[in-house]
Amino acid sequence: MTVDWIAVDWGTTHLRAWLIGGGEVTCLRSEKGGGGLAPEDYEPALLELIGEHLTGPAPVIACGMVGARQGWVEAPYATVPCKAPGVGEAIRVPTQDSRLDLYILPGVSQASPADVMRGEETQIAGFLAAHPKFDGVLCLPGTHTKWVHISAEEIVSFQTVMTGELFALLSEQSILRHSMGDGWDDVAFTGAVSDAMSRPQAIAAKLFALRAGSLLGDPDPGMARARLSGLLIGLELAATKPYWLGQELALIGAPDLCATYATALTAQGLAPTQHSGDDLTLAGLTAAYASLKETA
Amino acid sequence: MTVDWIAVDWGTTHLRAWLIGGGEVTCLRSEKGGGGLAPEDYEPALLELIGEHLTGPAPVIACGMVGARQGWVEAPYATVPCKAPGVGEAIRVPTQDSRLDLYILPGVSQASPADVMRGEETQIAGFLAAHPKFDGVLCLPGTHTKWVHISAEEIVSFQTVMTGELFALLSEQSILRHSMGDGWDDVAFTGAVSDAMSRPQAIAAKLFALRAGSLLGDPDPGMARARLSGLLIGLELAATKPYWLGQELALIGAPDLCATYATALTAQGLAPTQHSGDDLTLAGLTAAYASLKETA
Repeated sequence: MTVDWIAVDWGTTHLRAWLIGGGEVTCLRSEKGGGGLAPEDYEPALLELIGEHLTGPAPVIACGMVGARQGWVEAPYATVPCKAPGVGEAIRVPTQDSRLDLYILPGVSQASPADVMRGEETQIAGFLAAHPKFDGVLCLPGTHTKWVHISAEEIVSFQTVMTGELFALLSEQSILRHSMGDGWDDVAFTGAVSDAMSRPQAIAAKLFALRAGSLLGDPDPGMARARLSGLLIGLELAATKPYWLGQELALIGAPDLCATYATALTAQGLAPTQHSGDDLTLAGLTAAYASLKETA
Repeated sequence: MTVDWIAVDWGTTHLRAWLIGGGEVTCLRSEKGGGGLAPEDYEPALLELIGEHLTGPAPVIACGMVGARQGWVEAPYATVPCKAPGVGEAIRVPTQDSRLDLYILPGVSQASPADVMRGEETQIAGFLAAHPKFDGVLCLPGTHTKWVHISAEEIVSFQTVMTGELFALLSEQSILRHSMGDGWDDVAFTGAVSDAMSRPQAIAAKLFALRAGSLLGDPDPGMARARLSGLLIGLELAATKPYWLGQELALIGAPDLCATYATALTAQGLAPTQHSGDDLTLAGLTAAYASLKETA
């Protein structure tokens, strides 16, 4: 296979590269996320993953934490309102190995309320490449869930909520970890969503009740995980109501997580569509490559 | 010094013993908290700390996680409404070493909303020994802050809020740890308390803004710690308003933490008194010993 170009998604905890050429796509993965790398470590880490497949000089288009201040080279944020950044906003980074022609896409920032994204803007670009007329809200659930208002092909504003990180910390590291069973049901989940949305101020008190309930012989301890998730997503929906209320809504992310959010949002009367985050990352990088070829 | 009796506060992460006799008090500490001990490890851990000081058989009165299901021996909860448990509700535990005459005080539980405490009930007993006519609310800030309604010398109801644990997880382990300076000022803190109290549903969104603000060049990054603390304590005050509104209020705990809560509560028009948690633990155990002697 002759490699025409390479798409790279480089987050804090993972590195993925797609080698693309002659109608074929090969996806390679590495655990060398940017979180553990100094700037000089990036090029060797990338070559370790893709070096043997390189057939000659090729464009490499990368997104994610690789462009953060503590990444390979900083790609300064585009600022809302703006289009999802493409190759025109990318920075070109010199490399030791002349086979790499590297472009790093910038993230997007918002001055007030202060907010940032890196990586999600490329998924948004991928979504808008397929749905250029979309006018509404994108929700990208994950460690740091993004809510993004899209209008006239631009990112108008966005809002980050730390629901995924809070869930991980509380379910794995806090006292609540002792009460987390493997059980799940949507009734426990949507009940907790509804509780948190109707009385968000009570959430601080409802969390410890998950632990106390299991100590005092809660008849259904397996539901604590669903209830914790529901409380946190309910608090998120209460915070982001100005985003989603009455809007066309699309979910972008891991299928399981999107399905969980879809359950919560459907109970609020919405009908969100669901889209694979991985697919849209590649679609966004592909759109950037297409415009690079056009301008070449 | 002849040891008349021994007071023991045995939590998840620490063990403290006070040897008391002839008007003298010797306080000993160990890192052997109950979190790392199997039931058979407790007696050796206690003897390692106090064994060389024992002059003969002596009552040992203990409170805290030592009486939990996963502790030395389970001391079943007293249930609200109830007096703060004393030696009459303690369980007597057989020991290998005949010099130890061990009593473990129970915790307190509440069926609905489900809640539990272990250790705080002894501080409450110590407080009520000095203030038997108190009618109002006790707030015991800590990893798991307790709000306790006291009337007619009884614990009427209580509510646990995980503010301390959330603060530790978010400030030390989440993405926000990168934005935590050493700075503190009460204006940033009380502003955040007020923000969270007035719009508790927005807290999920305000947390990530602490990180984004520092990435985007917040002019005052040192205040992120005070703002995080203020947001979480504000959310707690919103959740517990039915407890404290219009009530006589006393804070019990570590002096620094009580002062932080006092700042937040004073801004809400309250005038809480402040009391050392360590002193009240010893006072509560002393009250239990006094009633043991009376009944002997």
